[in-house]
Amino acid sequence: MANSRLLEAVPALVDRALQGDRRSIARLISRVEDGGPEAWSALSLIYPRTGRAQIIGVTGAPGTGKSTLVGEIAKLYRKSSPALTVGIVAVDPTSPFSGGAVLGDRIRMRDLSGDEGVFIRSMATRGSLGGLARSTTDVVKVLDAAGFDVIVIETVGAGQSEIEVARTADTVIVVEAPGFGDEVQAIKAGILEIADILVVNKADRDGAQSTVNALHAMLDLGTAPHGLLHHGVLMPSVIPTPAKSDERWQPPILKTIASQGHGIDEVITAVAHHRAFLAAQPEGQQRARLRASMELETILRETLLDRLLQSVGADRLNALIDQVVARTIDPYSAADQLQRAAVQA
Amino acid sequence: MANSRLLEAVPALVDRALQGDRRSIARLISRVEDGGPEAWSALSLIYPRTGRAQIIGVTGAPGTGKSTLVGEIAKLYRKSSPALTVGIVAVDPTSPFSGGAVLGDRIRMRDLSGDEGVFIRSMATRGSLGGLARSTTDVVKVLDAAGFDVIVIETVGAGQSEIEVARTADTVIVVEAPGFGDEVQAIKAGILEIADILVVNKADRDGAQSTVNALHAMLDLGTAPHGLLHHGVLMPSVIPTPAKSDERWQPPILKTIASQGHGIDEVITAVAHHRAFLAAQPEGQQRARLRASMELETILRETLLDRLLQSVGADRLNALIDQVVARTIDPYSAADQLQRAAVQA
Repeated sequence: MANSRLLEAVPALVDRALQGDRRSIARLISRVEDGGPEAWSALSLIYPRTGRAQIIGVTGAPGTGKSTLVGEIAKLYRKSSPALTVGIVAVDPTSPFSGGAVLGDRIRMRDLSGDEGVFIRSMATRGSLGGLARSTTDVVKVLDAAGFDVIVIETVGAGQSEIEVARTADTVIVVEAPGFGDEVQAIKAGILEIADILVVNKADRDGAQSTVNALHAMLDLGTAPHGLLHHGVLMPSVIPTPAKSDERWQPPILKTIASQGHGIDEVITAVAHHRAFLAAQPEGQQRARLRASMELETILRETLLDRLLQSVGADRLNALIDQVVARTIDPYSAADQLQRAAVQA
Repeated sequence: MANSRLLEAVPALVDRALQGDRRSIARLISRVEDGGPEAWSALSLIYPRTGRAQIIGVTGAPGTGKSTLVGEIAKLYRKSSPALTVGIVAVDPTSPFSGGAVLGDRIRMRDLSGDEGVFIRSMATRGSLGGLARSTTDVVKVLDAAGFDVIVIETVGAGQSEIEVARTADTVIVVEAPGFGDEVQAIKAGILEIADILVVNKADRDGAQSTVNALHAMLDLGTAPHGLLHHGVLMPSVIPTPAKSDERWQPPILKTIASQGHGIDEVITAVAHHRAFLAAQPEGQQRARLRASMELETILRETLLDRLLQSVGADRLNALIDQVVARTIDPYSAADQLQRAAVQA
């Protein structure tokens, strides 16, 4: 009963959020983050209103000045037109274990606070692998449906889950800084391969040009093929192989000094070029399909397991885990038993 | 027909691997890495023979001398008793996109080659999130069943997936190095929280003691609670909350100079202490349950989706993705439709 009352509240909350009420947007985001049936019903309601925003992913190692850059990008978009609104989703690299508090939004708020055309939300990593990619995508959907024109997702480009998050954007900006010794790291983590735009921030520092040169060399070497479309998801069949004749996007390498606001206009121009490229070339449609299939996959991964566990029940699950621990059954056979039990239930 | 012939070969291959034939072990590992029904049948066959090896996870940032340390640990175990065999599984942080070649085993082989009591296997990250944790666990099982007494899993402690891999070990060693500025990074990534033993390698360098002190301070502050049992997996119900009276393991902080073989004996002694602790305290049993449930969860995540896609078929999936891209259906409803279709099939 209590549950159905909560569910009834969702359409009204969605209505207020879609009308742009900031407190309702914030509350809707919290519900969506929590996941579960309530979140899904909210997302089903808002989905037809999504797909309009320009979604930009910004990623890079800590210390590259990524957050400052994101702030400056937001400010410049706002300056370009008072009607243009910006949402920022900052994914903080908090420990998955302690799930600590997040300071990012407060720090950034100093510069952008009071501007009703900017909405900032920090998200801490929590729960299992894949959970963050799911919840970030969903929070972006809320902002998209609520009418924000540009949405910036900021992540720290360390692990694979951050890469997954960045991949949900239309345009991915990878931020480097001079003398950081990051270049090799970035390649190892596959970060360069998802970059649509490379930014060398703190370009007034020693070694800026050599960082730019190193990035150029890497791109030229083709050690970092622009690989968004080649990643092996579970549904490779849905992604058409790019034709050889298709034009490929060449990631530009830009220099910025975000702390002084230098070079930001070039970044925004590059984002616009990339958007135009995606609209004109088959790659844009391919990305849309890839994103849809990844999203579907993430949802299925979460819901299939939930459904199975609900239908099987904790007692049966516990008994099977006891057997696995005792090695009287192997985990593969245990998984098979659980699936059979779920089908019969 | 071809498929059933391949499946028939597995029991014979398993037999030869369990008898210790190195080439058969290597081939069995490759099959297990490939996943699929063949891998599962092999793993079911070997599972009753697993659970005997001491499994040690070693993780840390690049440049900490982790590989050298692993090599020295292996050498010292071998020296302690000629009958004691060591398996090394090196998980290389290759890009998930390019899946490049791996040099680790060749480099390490120089020192350990010719020793029949050591088996080294490098694994590149490939495929989706979770896939690496699954395949590493399975490769460790092959070595365990084949009779290796100690198995060392070496990962680079960057992303969440590496943490997941380390968590599959009985004892997790986290390696730091002086003057690396890594401490804060390590905490952010949650690495310290999974450490059973902390090693400050390159202890002859400046700043070694201050790194030790910093680690002590972090452990004392409790900012890094020994958190293996607190991680939110999808099956928290299967893990009993530790009683307040239960003794907690205090991670020792050890100094080594792996390149000169210094301090390795203390590391091995600490591993033995930790093993004895786990055997005597409830935490050992709790870890075993946690590991079994994580393993079951990983398998279910993979197999549930595979089964669903097989039963639904690519055409239906493609049609639904088209609808999601066109926003005539939201991904949650699409996922729901796929699940209903699978139940009816």
